[in-house]
Amino acid sequence: MQNATLQLFLGKASKRVYFNNPMWPGEAHTLEVKEIFYQGKSEYQEILVFESTSFGKVLVLDGIVQLTEKDECAYQEMITHLPLCSIPSPKTVLVVGGGDGGVLEELSRHSSVDLIDICEIDQMVIDVSKKFFPQLSVGFEDPRVRLHVGDAVEFLRSAPEGKDDAIIVDSLDPIGPAQELVEKPFFESIARALRPGGVLCNMAESTWLHTHLIQDMISICCETFKGSVRYAWASVPTYPSGVIGFVLCSTEGPPVDFLNPVNPIKKLEGATKHKKELKYYNSEVHSAAFALPRFLKREVSLLQDQGR
Amino acid sequence: MQNATLQLFLGKASKRVYFNNPMWPGEAHTLEVKEIFYQGKSEYQEILVFESTSFGKVLVLDGIVQLTEKDECAYQEMITHLPLCSIPSPKTVLVVGGGDGGVLEELSRHSSVDLIDICEIDQMVIDVSKKFFPQLSVGFEDPRVRLHVGDAVEFLRSAPEGKDDAIIVDSLDPIGPAQELVEKPFFESIARALRPGGVLCNMAESTWLHTHLIQDMISICCETFKGSVRYAWASVPTYPSGVIGFVLCSTEGPPVDFLNPVNPIKKLEGATKHKKELKYYNSEVHSAAFALPRFLKREVSLLQDQGR
Repeated sequence: MQNATLQLFLGKASKRVYFNNPMWPGEAHTLEVKEIFYQGKSEYQEILVFESTSFGKVLVLDGIVQLTEKDECAYQEMITHLPLCSIPSPKTVLVVGGGDGGVLEELSRHSSVDLIDICEIDQMVIDVSKKFFPQLSVGFEDPRVRLHVGDAVEFLRSAPEGKDDAIIVDSLDPIGPAQELVEKPFFESIARALRPGGVLCNMAESTWLHTHLIQDMISICCETFKGSVRYAWASVPTYPSGVIGFVLCSTEGPPVDFLNPVNPIKKLEGATKHKKELKYYNSEVHSAAFALPRFLKREVSLLQDQGR
Repeated sequence: MQNATLQLFLGKASKRVYFNNPMWPGEAHTLEVKEIFYQGKSEYQEILVFESTSFGKVLVLDGIVQLTEKDECAYQEMITHLPLCSIPSPKTVLVVGGGDGGVLEELSRHSSVDLIDICEIDQMVIDVSKKFFPQLSVGFEDPRVRLHVGDAVEFLRSAPEGKDDAIIVDSLDPIGPAQELVEKPFFESIARALRPGGVLCNMAESTWLHTHLIQDMISICCETFKGSVRYAWASVPTYPSGVIGFVLCSTEGPPVDFLNPVNPIKKLEGATKHKKELKYYNSEVHSAAFALPRFLKREVSLLQDQGR
């Protein structure tokens, strides 16, 4: 990861941050800088916060854009509401990663939820978000939230069985320390922590760039989860290739039809009173997210079907 | 446009082509170069063809990526099949622009079509495509194709009334000479050339970056077309913000339900025998393309409804 980080400031003279990475070889994206607010190194990663000229404030971890104010809505709303709207009255939710607070903030639209555990490994990400992205980190102020700073693999190993209605894995790309989060034991511990018919939504890379990673993840999920396994995607301009995918899984139990949300957000009591309007998600976008380009469908459909 | 083109080779030392443009301020995209095949200037624009390390061959006009071998499928298949699959047995089609031949090649899957007029202003784009993108320019060899090299505004002014079943506008961004192609007289001449219940599919920019251009175009289309007006989008990694939109319109006559294609491609006789497999388009992707993120839906729905 050092390379990606070191290259970050090559463009500094022209006030551009330059994002390239082995995860998206042969291409790069640059954002023009208005002001750099923060540069630091935690125990786990390098952290950068800057104001861009066209995407608002940007949070960068180890040289990879995590969010921008302009397009974070697509990622945070989809990773939260795809699972939460797919089951009736979710009550207990676990968030893995998500230290910026954005997923917590979206969860707060769901008034049926009474307990949100979040396990983020890096306290510094939380602190930086509280300072520079208060509109996201406000999610931590929800009294239903219990924060656990630590390793999610450990946390899930000792988590009670069959407790959670939904688990959201808002993690980094699977290089370096996050590698464990795409391996089978991790998914097995998630399946154990979920109640029967509970759901997982896991960040799952770019449809255009990472077909093999997606295949591997779906293959593991099909072995591990005995309910449904589906792939969905959304448009996020500042992520590599402009898209991000999600793997959605349910455990054995009441069947979950991810394509047709049973808990539509327009009916949620809290959702309409929420301070921040939804910007990306709606029920049509939810269902449409599961329509896969032919090249990807060919690769993943077989796996999804085998899993059933 | 000169600026964008001049900046193209700033990165040449590191073998990268650098794409920035006032159409997407504050950000840029770079592609690593394996080999530059062609650089030239036609009467209308600067033309560049190179082999990239990760997206195959790339065609660039005036500093803007037109297509790459890796992701051209999404644009060409969607701009062709969204309109053609929405009407029963299309017979006569007009293509505006599209000098690379990719749309013609996709049209060749539709065996009901017996006449394809194409009006491309720049002969050099056709010649360059024939040399470097034979898998696309093969579309020109279809005996149903009549090529007209010239100005589409002129061409449509003298086109017979009510002839075409479908018109596809595969044009440049509306800066410089292509400006006329987003103005009302142009859309009026398209509406005149279409038969009752005929359809237009027009390239319509990025959902994330060009909301005002999209609003303007939809507003003009709602005034001009008395059938349906709809907005759809697709993921194209090498286009700005990773997405491209399409405006679909139908003239007064037999109603057209763009969201539910009546002419599904899997039933097309020619489609299955086609040399090149579809990579992006399928019927689910067709319908899903009309599901708009909330921020865009808010802006365009009202216009679409007003038009009806």
